[in-house]
Amino acid sequence: MNVMNFILASASPRRQMLLRQIGIEATIIKPDGFVEKTQIDGSIKALVRFNALGKATFVQQQVSAADVLIAADTIVAFEGKILGKPQNRIKAQEMLECLAGKMHHVITCLVVMYKGQTEVACVTTEVYFRSLTASEIEDYLAAGESMDKAGAYGIQGQGAILVEKINGCYNNVVGLPLTCLYKMLNKLEVK
Amino acid sequence: MNVMNFILASASPRRQMLLRQIGIEATIIKPDGFVEKTQIDGSIKALVRFNALGKATFVQQQVSAADVLIAADTIVAFEGKILGKPQNRIKAQEMLECLAGKMHHVITCLVVMYKGQTEVACVTTEVYFRSLTASEIEDYLAAGESMDKAGAYGIQGQGAILVEKINGCYNNVVGLPLTCLYKMLNKLEVK
Repeated sequence: MNVMNFILASASPRRQMLLRQIGIEATIIKPDGFVEKTQIDGSIKALVRFNALGKATFVQQQVSAADVLIAADTIVAFEGKILGKPQNRIKAQEMLECLAGKMHHVITCLVVMYKGQTEVACVTTEVYFRSLTASEIEDYLAAGESMDKAGAYGIQGQGAILVEKINGCYNNVVGLPLTCLYKMLNKLEVK
Repeated sequence: MNVMNFILASASPRRQMLLRQIGIEATIIKPDGFVEKTQIDGSIKALVRFNALGKATFVQQQVSAADVLIAADTIVAFEGKILGKPQNRIKAQEMLECLAGKMHHVITCLVVMYKGQTEVACVTTEVYFRSLTASEIEDYLAAGESMDKAGAYGIQGQGAILVEKINGCYNNVVGLPLTCLYKMLNKLEVK
């Protein structure tokens, strides 16, 4: 068995940690030259697909075809609207008020490139927030987790107590749907 | 605001980690003198309740009433049958074969005692395993995660890729339903 070289085309250390959880040690190459879109003509899935493929294609130029290249883009969508990373505390507060007591979707598009083949898959998880009081939202904002996260929360941190339940893949909400990734790697005969 | 003293009546370092995730630093006191039941007349919920209350009551004698005492018991149930921690590798393999391609329940009973009050709550999560080949089960057993875990898997480890999706609280499957715990602490006016 050859030892595979895994490349993660993402700026997210959270995704690197998730890969480590299933025994994959990946090198991060940030797709810095690729400009993500935040809106697109067409569906939300078309947008995450565009961004994930864009990251993968950009980093592909810097790696070998024998490397396993993994890219992902995750979007939080509420009633058809995209919630990105909040620009400031007020935007973060508005997002949490919007999500409180309701269900939203977390959608990730995964791209795996290996030996000239490309696999693309999309995973959606339903996340149900519990009702939140104004002071609970204040407390959460004070915890300082919101600013670098789409939807202004992190389910893997103190944001766990904002969530009543999920329906779907948990690691998708953290940022990388591991079971889907495993299946894609299997299909490409990686490992 | 007084600084609360949290006691976790559990031998599980995983539960202590989950408390840390939501900012609670708890001292572990193992309920060593309490003998857990593995079967009971009545429902599975009656059994987890018996065990969680037993752990709490046992440790209660060693702490102050001003301490916040948290106890929990988690059970994996498949088609009405309880799957405990496997005694050996063959039992672990049998459990994983049993769960593959099917849905099972993870049930936790939480007990919180504070200033003479006792709160008890039960949380159930549906866990859907994907189909597993014999060699996938072999690989997972070789990863060495199975032996100390009810149902022979850990969703927070490499076991993540055994799970297709969940419906309910993720942290319940890890061992401590954080949102439910938060609500109970709120009700008891802790913090």
